[in-house]
Amino acid sequence: MEIVARIESCLEDAIDRATAEQCPPLLAQAVRHAVFPGGARVRPQLCLSVAAACSATDEQIPDAVACAIEMMHCASLVHDDLPCFDDADLRRGKETVHTRFGEPIAVLVGDALIVEAFNTVSLACAHKPERIAPLLSCISRSVGMSGGIIAGQAWESERDVDVHEYHRAKTGSLFVGAVVSGAIATGANPEPWRPLGQKIGEAYQLADDLLDAAGTQAECGKPVAQDSSHDRPSAVARLGIEGTMKLLRQTVGEAVACIPDCEGAEDLRDLIAAQATRLVPAKLAKAAA
Amino acid sequence: MEIVARIESCLEDAIDRATAEQCPPLLAQAVRHAVFPGGARVRPQLCLSVAAACSATDEQIPDAVACAIEMMHCASLVHDDLPCFDDADLRRGKETVHTRFGEPIAVLVGDALIVEAFNTVSLACAHKPERIAPLLSCISRSVGMSGGIIAGQAWESERDVDVHEYHRAKTGSLFVGAVVSGAIATGANPEPWRPLGQKIGEAYQLADDLLDAAGTQAECGKPVAQDSSHDRPSAVARLGIEGTMKLLRQTVGEAVACIPDCEGAEDLRDLIAAQATRLVPAKLAKAAA
Repeated sequence: MEIVARIESCLEDAIDRATAEQCPPLLAQAVRHAVFPGGARVRPQLCLSVAAACSATDEQIPDAVACAIEMMHCASLVHDDLPCFDDADLRRGKETVHTRFGEPIAVLVGDALIVEAFNTVSLACAHKPERIAPLLSCISRSVGMSGGIIAGQAWESERDVDVHEYHRAKTGSLFVGAVVSGAIATGANPEPWRPLGQKIGEAYQLADDLLDAAGTQAECGKPVAQDSSHDRPSAVARLGIEGTMKLLRQTVGEAVACIPDCEGAEDLRDLIAAQATRLVPAKLAKAAA
Repeated sequence: MEIVARIESCLEDAIDRATAEQCPPLLAQAVRHAVFPGGARVRPQLCLSVAAACSATDEQIPDAVACAIEMMHCASLVHDDLPCFDDADLRRGKETVHTRFGEPIAVLVGDALIVEAFNTVSLACAHKPERIAPLLSCISRSVGMSGGIIAGQAWESERDVDVHEYHRAKTGSLFVGAVVSGAIATGANPEPWRPLGQKIGEAYQLADDLLDAAGTQAECGKPVAQDSSHDRPSAVARLGIEGTMKLLRQTVGEAVACIPDCEGAEDLRDLIAAQATRLVPAKLAKAAA
């Protein structure tokens, strides 16, 4: 099965299992709304591509880990869209969870996805229990309150913020988690993979800043120009569009150079190049062509 | 070390570890505010008492599991107090997390505690990785979206609700989780323990309804008469105070009768009797004496 199909199938299984019995109907609908149809599934694709590059022989654990990374991402989007954070009405081209199902259900959808992400990994490792602790530790770190997504969102409530640390936590951490957990899932030593995750996180943040500044709502599936209207730090505000495009190209190059020597390195390079192109707003890509 | 001291010490270690690096200061403060000082720590005490009754030889895994159960409980309180749920200002005799630190931080505190609960269990099982999956499965079920606390809170957004199922999910599930995970933590077969958890959950719900109807704010550390003002189902509304007292005594008796034959059964009976007395509002206990 192709990577994208494996991700959707594993997510379907996880959500079906989690909502199979005694799940309140609105919550079950809302969880599906938060996860399907997905965005680009960039993080789980990256996770599975790293696992493939590490010559994964078993698909079960990598699939579950990729699916957990995506569930964590979806949870963070649902909570980040809440009225007390971004108060966003639109996500992936449709209503946000709280707009459609109300705030209480949106809070619970995020909570439930965090729980199921961990449970999914743990269930998939029944035959290799020694993988669970390193995987959970990696995933916890990438979403947790010290340097993870949760820390990233919490920096928005602080007066003194190091912008680099804020972006590293809010955006970069889950890319690091996707890459590193992809290696752990196969039993490989994950440390040589960490710099790749960090560079991809930086590139994604730059691309996201560009999309917000120069993309259209149709391209993003959500309102644009949010950084300037929420007065959030952005590379575009600091470097301008040209400067940000240049830095993005440089960072993607650095990411590719970070790929450790391995059998699947070539495919991974192709994926990163394809994602980097996809993420640049259409009108900038055309202008640069 | 006494059970209560072990719980506090393990919680201190878990929160210190989770906030040690790069945790935004407000979030770190808010997480501590949510966990310390605690309430009666009923659930983790129950978890450790069951582990002791199963003749636990190792304290590390039971302590971590008890601590995870309490972190899940604290997470659910913080989210349940949010304006979109109970909109409560007071909890354990002090300001609720969102009242003191704002709603965004309160949402993130709940998220972070869920993450750390799982991570704490996983880290403690490094020497016995085969315990992690059954423990995570048990804890996920007791907090999750099918029959767990999250389901319980979500039933409040539904029109047609089975009151018994609502209480079982919102209150009973974590008592079942505390009891069953206490047994799993020692490597014992958990199934004979499940009915005890269910009965204690029912008793606790009755006691909670009594406290809400006939307790004082000082006793509860939170506003009383919330069931009637939120029009929530309550045993007191259905059976009256006398009827609820009678059912509570009967349910505690049934719980004690559910304790499986084991070395520590006597201590466990004492704990349940002590908790049952402590939970009855002072004026009713006096009247019944």
